[in-house]
Amino acid sequence: MPPDSLPHCEANCLPTALTIPALNDVFRCVDQLGPQFEADLVELLRIPSVSADSRSTPDVRRAAQWLVEHLGAMGLPAQLIETPGHPIVYAETRPVPGAPVALVYGHYDVQPPDPLDEWTSPPFEPTVRDGNLYARGATDDKGQMLTHIKSVQAWLAANETLPLQVKLLIEGEEEVGSEHLEHFLGNNREKLACDCVVISDTAQFARGVPAITYGLRGIAYYELHLQGPSQDLHSGVFGGAVVNPAVVLSQILAAVLDDQGRIQLPGFYEDVVPLGDRERDEFRSLPFDEQAFQDELGVKGLAGESGFSTLERRWARPSFDINGIWSGYQGEGAKTILPARASAKFSFRLVPDQDPKKITAGLRTFLKPLIPQGVAMELVDFHGAPGIAMPIDSHYLKAAADAIEIGFGTRPVFIREGGSIPIVNTFAEELGAEVLLLGWGQNDDNLHAPNEKFSLADFHRGIRASAALWHSLAATKQ
Amino acid sequence: MPPDSLPHCEANCLPTALTIPALNDVFRCVDQLGPQFEADLVELLRIPSVSADSRSTPDVRRAAQWLVEHLGAMGLPAQLIETPGHPIVYAETRPVPGAPVALVYGHYDVQPPDPLDEWTSPPFEPTVRDGNLYARGATDDKGQMLTHIKSVQAWLAANETLPLQVKLLIEGEEEVGSEHLEHFLGNNREKLACDCVVISDTAQFARGVPAITYGLRGIAYYELHLQGPSQDLHSGVFGGAVVNPAVVLSQILAAVLDDQGRIQLPGFYEDVVPLGDRERDEFRSLPFDEQAFQDELGVKGLAGESGFSTLERRWARPSFDINGIWSGYQGEGAKTILPARASAKFSFRLVPDQDPKKITAGLRTFLKPLIPQGVAMELVDFHGAPGIAMPIDSHYLKAAADAIEIGFGTRPVFIREGGSIPIVNTFAEELGAEVLLLGWGQNDDNLHAPNEKFSLADFHRGIRASAALWHSLAATKQ
Repeated sequence: MPPDSLPHCEANCLPTALTIPALNDVFRCVDQLGPQFEADLVELLRIPSVSADSRSTPDVRRAAQWLVEHLGAMGLPAQLIETPGHPIVYAETRPVPGAPVALVYGHYDVQPPDPLDEWTSPPFEPTVRDGNLYARGATDDKGQMLTHIKSVQAWLAANETLPLQVKLLIEGEEEVGSEHLEHFLGNNREKLACDCVVISDTAQFARGVPAITYGLRGIAYYELHLQGPSQDLHSGVFGGAVVNPAVVLSQILAAVLDDQGRIQLPGFYEDVVPLGDRERDEFRSLPFDEQAFQDELGVKGLAGESGFSTLERRWARPSFDINGIWSGYQGEGAKTILPARASAKFSFRLVPDQDPKKITAGLRTFLKPLIPQGVAMELVDFHGAPGIAMPIDSHYLKAAADAIEIGFGTRPVFIREGGSIPIVNTFAEELGAEVLLLGWGQNDDNLHAPNEKFSLADFHRGIRASAALWHSLAATKQ
Repeated sequence: MPPDSLPHCEANCLPTALTIPALNDVFRCVDQLGPQFEADLVELLRIPSVSADSRSTPDVRRAAQWLVEHLGAMGLPAQLIETPGHPIVYAETRPVPGAPVALVYGHYDVQPPDPLDEWTSPPFEPTVRDGNLYARGATDDKGQMLTHIKSVQAWLAANETLPLQVKLLIEGEEEVGSEHLEHFLGNNREKLACDCVVISDTAQFARGVPAITYGLRGIAYYELHLQGPSQDLHSGVFGGAVVNPAVVLSQILAAVLDDQGRIQLPGFYEDVVPLGDRERDEFRSLPFDEQAFQDELGVKGLAGESGFSTLERRWARPSFDINGIWSGYQGEGAKTILPARASAKFSFRLVPDQDPKKITAGLRTFLKPLIPQGVAMELVDFHGAPGIAMPIDSHYLKAAADAIEIGFGTRPVFIREGGSIPIVNTFAEELGAEVLLLGWGQNDDNLHAPNEKFSLADFHRGIRASAALWHSLAATKQ
């Protein structure tokens, strides 16, 4: 439940000129309200808003309602906007003539929590250990998204106004492809008009090395179902003569990569923008410890496409992963069946300028000769999004770097990111706005995995950086 | 629960000379007790004695106890013999000097019933439809095994004695490798001494074409676990740089077969006894309709090792099947993870003279170069058994053919079978006895699959053939 009222800070709350003193007042508010901000985050994390699981639909809605009531209570009337899927939450501060408009985008939905038995504390019972808050959605994206709401709250509490207009757009379908948000953006260009979009849904480069992410990979995600015999058969009576769909599935999935780790779909690399020397040099100069990275993941070796470094493979080269696979008997003991069906979820990470639609066409061409008689195929094409890379020399990126330096006490590095935020492209295209990816998370935050966490120190630093951002963005047009 | 007493037939129950009239009396008993025999089978099928699932252990025991009490009630004191696993049930009729000794082997354990939602009626609620009794274990092996208990019951009811000694050995671990029975056989050679072993756990060649099976394939069954990172990772953040264990698993499983359907383990075909021309001719002469076979299975094509027919592939050539595979996310929607683990159950069907131990060694050699750094492998070696083929020209096989002709009204064909009855080799080796595989089932009985069934007509024909067998086997030494 949202609080009935929120405490107000005791700083000077009269409107003041938009100067650094105003920011100092905001920071005093941030410090004072800090414990309450943590409690608010815990409350939101308790709601299991898993958008991929239809059984969780009421909880997803409950998270949206919590946000609407929470924003209202802090003095920012918010709308719950219905979509054919999960609702969108929208609010905006007063317009500030002459100042740019910033639109914050975040999401209140979370990934499924499975496998449940690998969580140290339950995914929807937020628990603090060693300064980290553990819960599904802690970093992705409830915790990061909330830093911007809290910075607005602190500005309002300290100064009753902001130096620029902030629009808040929080959706509930990010983890399932943002299908309806895209439609909403297309139909509400005027309402959402802005100069830049601020998104905190990525990670810092390392502990103590905050980063601005200027590039993202895209994604093309599929589910493949193979049907062999109409039901499971005895593998002794029929094995060797009847095509085993699980064997065919393995053969298909194994054929995707060659022995150099290159993807074999026809035309797959045709549109890939090659890595430039300058970018490769910059990646090389980053403080990346490959051995520590391995140790953190618990693996004894890394591998991928030949001829590229680990950072290049993660950020700027396309990749193939099986995300799930299932067929036949998975229980205890030996069941001697030839399974009727075999299925897999798999995905490609894409880089600029690969087009997911072209990838799907290539995939169909690739699959056709691999399906023998005796097996029927169904390919489900999930959400797709192209990769994106933004100009490093923009004023807004510079303003964001200044704000991060204030909030985190150190200048950020400029990096790319292997994950996808499918909506980023749509923002750039539909709103003609620059997108600022200001991640407050850490690489070991276990997003999409058990024991997801968010550093409480980063939560508070993020709020300060966000508060400073409203000041420094406003300054770009002053 | 077993019945307190069993009805006795009204035929002449005084001891008679072992002549065909005695057999006629037995047949009258079989006809008269038929409905009760069906009721007994239904009772046994209601017990979910799934030996592979440790949660079913009490039910497995309950099935053994049912048999002991049932045999006792029909006048045959039986023992429940403990093993470190599931118990063995043993009983024997009076010795008959000068006559051979027949040992009936069967099993009261059943395969797991999954996938449950594909059963038309629940697996442990036996249901008759179109003259078939549907239940897990109906044909494999409770129904077939019970035909021999019922024939003994009919002989005892009609004549108070049998023309030869019958020993009944019913185990509860056939579906999980008969581990403890093997030990029991080795330690009880005298108690179990016999001239032939009678097993009904196979199928007729076709409807109206009863068969004696003179060859079986062996099996080597494995479970492979691959561990990548210590937990599921975000496939965007890490994909392309961290080895995906599900991809490695696909590559391993895909590498097992070449494009001719030949198994690539080193030395795999070294000991395979090639198919002789006479055997291939005999297979070709059998009334096998490949199109009907496909239609029955619901597939649009068949495939397997190049250069062999469907019957050859099923009966007399080794094969490879994935029995189960699982990794990552199997739920609804798109979860973008790089899974921490990937596992598969897979098996090879073996033919004479392949040795499962040698196959395991070859498998380990095969796997080693396929496991990249960054993935750890665990291989679990389940039960293995070599294939077997018996001499076609024995007296006992001839006697069995005569009995089947009496019971089913038609002469049986001699066939091989693709499945494995691992214990058959042990019987041959430990007891020096000939093994008679007299199957009463049908190929579409769905053994090891949903909707397992057994024809009630075949159940009664099997009881008559078994009753005739005691006469014809006795005659071989007269």
